[in-house]
Amino acid sequence: MQINKPIELNGQPIAGGKFPLICTPLVGRTLDKLMAELAVVLPKKPDVLEWRVDYFEQIGDAAGVISAAVAIKKAAGDIPLLFTRRSTMEGGEKIALSEEQVIAMYTAVCESKTIDLIDYEMANDAANIVRVRDAAKANGIKLVLSFHNFSYTPGLETLAAKFLTADQLGADVAKVAVMPRDLDDVLTLLTATREASKKLRIPLISMSMGPLGALTRMIGGAFGSSLSFAVGAAASAPGQVPIEDLNTVLSIVNKSMGCT
Amino acid sequence: MQINKPIELNGQPIAGGKFPLICTPLVGRTLDKLMAELAVVLPKKPDVLEWRVDYFEQIGDAAGVISAAVAIKKAAGDIPLLFTRRSTMEGGEKIALSEEQVIAMYTAVCESKTIDLIDYEMANDAANIVRVRDAAKANGIKLVLSFHNFSYTPGLETLAAKFLTADQLGADVAKVAVMPRDLDDVLTLLTATREASKKLRIPLISMSMGPLGALTRMIGGAFGSSLSFAVGAAASAPGQVPIEDLNTVLSIVNKSMGCT
Repeated sequence: MQINKPIELNGQPIAGGKFPLICTPLVGRTLDKLMAELAVVLPKKPDVLEWRVDYFEQIGDAAGVISAAVAIKKAAGDIPLLFTRRSTMEGGEKIALSEEQVIAMYTAVCESKTIDLIDYEMANDAANIVRVRDAAKANGIKLVLSFHNFSYTPGLETLAAKFLTADQLGADVAKVAVMPRDLDDVLTLLTATREASKKLRIPLISMSMGPLGALTRMIGGAFGSSLSFAVGAAASAPGQVPIEDLNTVLSIVNKSMGCT
Repeated sequence: MQINKPIELNGQPIAGGKFPLICTPLVGRTLDKLMAELAVVLPKKPDVLEWRVDYFEQIGDAAGVISAAVAIKKAAGDIPLLFTRRSTMEGGEKIALSEEQVIAMYTAVCESKTIDLIDYEMANDAANIVRVRDAAKANGIKLVLSFHNFSYTPGLETLAAKFLTADQLGADVAKVAVMPRDLDDVLTLLTATREASKKLRIPLISMSMGPLGALTRMIGGAFGSSLSFAVGAAASAPGQVPIEDLNTVLSIVNKSMGCT
């Protein structure tokens, strides 16, 4: 089995199989701010855009969300769009919606086909995960099932289990993001990533957050992480590095490892 | 205890405590070639120079070796000089000297005080290690006891033991360089480095060699490796990256990790 698996859309690896992909978050609170953010981000040529809709003031208005998604997609051209409502339990912004309303919005956005990938936390209710998965699948949208811990890094076995759970729950991509307290935790995350990349059928994304974990955003690809989040205009999580810096390091790492 | 220990000379950390240091090897076969190499290397401002004397055609002539060391030291100015005869057992060039003659040369070079650090393999005969250690100590020269495996990466316990052995044998610096067969071996080397950095009283140097291990030359510092070898003019081991690339990556890594 291929160890480092790229994320695919329509049977084709994104960005021609570049590994890891670079994804830039969008965190604007209004459509105008999102457009201004895109004007800064797009010239930096990210491989994927993540719209963190929990930052969006109009999140309660599904039609408003879809029309913003249409506008983002139009501006982004060929760049795939990952749609994410990050729950407050896992580091997201506070929103006024119930989980039922979130599922309704997720379903409407999937049906609008304005997005390419959608992220949902694997800690959510199992029935809701099935609903999001079915809505994504029915509309050809890839499902990222994610796990975040902003307090600490669980042990190796627990981390490994998170990747496997995403796979078992029917994700197209497994994502694990955890906070290290020391460099041992950083090594644990890298080791779990490497182990999971050998066992999983699906691509995975992983990172240690914060300054200590910033390393993993730069070298995680070597250990199997298929995508790294980098700052285009504004960060969405601690430890994200500027896309320019990430490009620089990745080009040197890939050259040194004989990958180019 | 301080986890990441810098290498010191005369009670002062080299390069003001910069971590990791960058060391550029010199592999010229003649004094003229060494001087030409220095003309390329010195403008790149390495923190340490390693003279790999096993490449030197005149290695059999102690006076010739010392006068070359004097010339290198004069050209290098304040940059500390690490003196190394790498044995063929551990990846060095073939030389005509017996180990007895090597010890005599090592002793003469230490007594000449033209060098700052000296490297000897910890796999050598215990009595010879004592002689090199005593010659170094008597002349205020720091002893690096090293272990190299160009075939594979021993397991975590074995690697950890190598660092400890260097410490127990009276080294001032422990060095471990091994060849990975896959990324698991790279993680093993990093984990062993991190573990050793918590246990050892002395600074350590470690790396995975070859393209797969090139990563460790860039990020090993975060896990405790106090020095990284980089190419100034010519490589002395597989996987060494150009000093310019290493500087670039280290500055981004240090900035991202909040070390600057």
